Amino acid sequence: MSPGSPHPHSHVVPRHPRLDPLADRYAARTHGMKSSEIRALFSVVSRPEVVSLAGGMPAVTALPLDAVGSMIGELVSGMGAQTLQYGSGQGDPRLRERICDVMALEGITDASPSEVVVTVGSQQGLDLVTRVFCDPGDVVLAEGPSYVGALGVFQAAEARVRHVPMDDDGLIPEALEQALLECRANGDRVKFLYTVPNFHNPAGVTLSEPRRQAIVDIAERYDLLVIEDNPYGLLGFEHEPMRALRARNSQRVVYLGSFSKTFSPGLRVGWVLAPLAVREKLVLATEAQVLCPPSLTQYAVARYLDTQPWREQIKLFTELYRERRDATLESLDALMPPGTTWTRPDGGFYVWLKLPHGLDSKLMQPRAVNAHVAYVPGIGFYADGAGREYMRLSYCYPEPDQIREGVRRLARVIEAELDLHSTFDAVDTGTFRAVGRPAPTHTAETIVGPANSDRSED
Amino acid sequence: MSPGSPHPHSHVVPRHPRLDPLADRYAARTHGMKSSEIRALFSVVSRPEVVSLAGGMPAVTALPLDAVGSMIGELVSGMGAQTLQYGSGQGDPRLRERICDVMALEGITDASPSEVVVTVGSQQGLDLVTRVFCDPGDVVLAEGPSYVGALGVFQAAEARVRHVPMDDDGLIPEALEQALLECRANGDRVKFLYTVPNFHNPAGVTLSEPRRQAIVDIAERYDLLVIEDNPYGLLGFEHEPMRALRARNSQRVVYLGSFSKTFSPGLRVGWVLAPLAVREKLVLATEAQVLCPPSLTQYAVARYLDTQPWREQIKLFTELYRERRDATLESLDALMPPGTTWTRPDGGFYVWLKLPHGLDSKLMQPRAVNAHVAYVPGIGFYADGAGREYMRLSYCYPEPDQIREGVRRLARVIEAELDLHSTFDAVDTGTFRAVGRPAPTHTAETIVGPANSDRSED
Repeated sequence: MSPGSPHPHSHVVPRHPRLDPLADRYAARTHGMKSSEIRALFSVVSRPEVVSLAGGMPAVTALPLDAVGSMIGELVSGMGAQTLQYGSGQGDPRLRERICDVMALEGITDASPSEVVVTVGSQQGLDLVTRVFCDPGDVVLAEGPSYVGALGVFQAAEARVRHVPMDDDGLIPEALEQALLECRANGDRVKFLYTVPNFHNPAGVTLSEPRRQAIVDIAERYDLLVIEDNPYGLLGFEHEPMRALRARNSQRVVYLGSFSKTFSPGLRVGWVLAPLAVREKLVLATEAQVLCPPSLTQYAVARYLDTQPWREQIKLFTELYRERRDATLESLDALMPPGTTWTRPDGGFYVWLKLPHGLDSKLMQPRAVNAHVAYVPGIGFYADGAGREYMRLSYCYPEPDQIREGVRRLARVIEAELDLHSTFDAVDTGTFRAVGRPAPTHTAETIVGPANSDRSED
Repeated sequence: MSPGSPHPHSHVVPRHPRLDPLADRYAARTHGMKSSEIRALFSVVSRPEVVSLAGGMPAVTALPLDAVGSMIGELVSGMGAQTLQYGSGQGDPRLRERICDVMALEGITDASPSEVVVTVGSQQGLDLVTRVFCDPGDVVLAEGPSYVGALGVFQAAEARVRHVPMDDDGLIPEALEQALLECRANGDRVKFLYTVPNFHNPAGVTLSEPRRQAIVDIAERYDLLVIEDNPYGLLGFEHEPMRALRARNSQRVVYLGSFSKTFSPGLRVGWVLAPLAVREKLVLATEAQVLCPPSLTQYAVARYLDTQPWREQIKLFTELYRERRDATLESLDALMPPGTTWTRPDGGFYVWLKLPHGLDSKLMQPRAVNAHVAYVPGIGFYADGAGREYMRLSYCYPEPDQIREGVRRLARVIEAELDLHSTFDAVDTGTFRAVGRPAPTHTAETIVGPANSDRSED
């Protein structure tokens, strides 16, 4: 019995986790679990005086709430025997058909409803895929930076993450190939590449058309499985949706989709599209995890797609996010001190900002909170401790005026931090170009990548 | 590259799972996953001519569907900003308060909403607890038979299940103690006891009052964690709810609850009540798995508890299930051939039936399906291959007349099977007494337990 454990038959037990009497019996994976940078901010960003550029909450109030309410109410009154009852583990067949229609917008025209598994948000989809493929110690390749929720899944599976650098055109194929060769040399078991090709979270960049084919070719050549996570693909500001990786290869790409950004995150409806053999494993895994996804929310999404003008609603969302993106970029251009750089997303929710040399977004956070502005420090998006000089700014939720005020506050915080640091390091020696001063040999305006990557100068 | 994998650059890939090109890269846990006995029946039981005594679907049409529909519709129209948005990983605070009220009905009066984690059904709760505690090879103690969905969770975690015998008064404390001693002697790491104390699935028995205290005392003495899974506790036919194990010890018992049987399974709202240190781990685990449970379904349950006569609704459900239980037992008493025995549940959904000696419920299944009656073979409820002579009969879903017809068909199938076997084994040498002929030294009418258990004769 450990020193902190209670006396037998005593019901007075210390409540502090450090005195947890069960501390010696958790699974190995549990010891690695920790709060994400985003969750740590939760109590801060909910204070009304704080402008939060931290959370990734969609603007759900832009939905026709009365129509959606009536629709869902009628589903329960009229079809309670189905919508309030258990369903199948794989998910409602009608919804799976409609999901195939949605994916066709990104060039996936050969998907069958039988290859679709409905999940509790695409987060559960990623968790299922990871459980099905990853043993402890297996390697997952992922962009650097990468989605914080994905890193949480990989950590819970005791997988090791190897980041692959990105630039303004997304994941760098040569870097992927190099990573694969290095893993091969190390004897690492690489289970898959995890990638967010469109409007990357947190980097805000999109994988270019030529690189899409290059990545798929590498997957064939190296016998690599690709997990394509695509929650934002339909939220582009400038052009039609790009063709998915899955549209180029149906056997080496497992696709994760979500209605959280195109309809509602509170319904938690996502999906996985996978080759039949993998789909079969995923269904067994989800049955062990949740039996079946909620019926009501699945019927709600299927009915919404059947009866509501969902394509027009996505356009409306996109216009709204474009306005907020513009407010963000205009304010950054106008207010940020020299040496600060950032990406220029043409869709999605996020800008990835690099601080002037020597500044640390995590150490700066208390000062920002005091100034009533919140962001997510970059270290949350790396599995290897990199990213201290970065932060993620989300423009999806606040109104444009709030965004401008938030950026103004942030600029002041960075300036104050620079003043503080000026006695130590007066010159910005960062390797990232400032926005608006592109290097003559390169048309892209900014670069994404960890400072410790050899790609960050290009 | 394995022989069955595709030629590089070829997109023509064999679709049969046996030719799965990814077969060599699944995680170890994936190779052990298999369809449950219940899932295998899915296509059979949905045929209208079949009387299904297989599924455990609650009678949701007994709910006031119009009122529930209006209520949920208004939640979306009036509170869309909350009900359609992301929520917290731990679950809605208001719902967690109401959950504490519900648990108070079973004597848990000291629970705090901060100790509650809302889950996607109690299945997810069990999965989270198992992920937090179990490494591959760890031992879980569970009743024999045990809930099939729990066995799926333990298998996915690569935990080893050791069954502990039950009788008509539920789990046998002396057998639990013996199992603990044997595990200790073997050097097994026992992570917890998993138990369903009320109206056991599939056994239909309830842990007696004296045994509850005995189990909790053993937990203290052996430093044992107990997972109390209680979906049916409020569905008793004869008496008030019994006092939960968790009400007797707040630090050694983790409690799993569900609204699937008292309200609606299609909403997938369950919960875990755990000491704060464990609760903290569970929240991290659920965030990695689903980010947060669906908001809409949580608000729906909280509003239902706030505004609808939910206690009266539970009474109504209970009356309905009691009627169906009566129809089941009366038909079994009237129709079953000698040598067949079964439990007499005083709540919940299930009867556990033992076939006459020599019969095998799994082998008999095709004959039953031909006769248009479905049940779940007993082997699905054991991790060790036991249970062939048992079956689970669910009376929760079919109307009493259907139940009577189903039992009539089943009796004929068993009789035909007995005829078939009579040339091989004319005498019933089973160790279970037939219902209605209790042994004089024992007031309980039937015994539950695997035939290979040394408890099965008492």
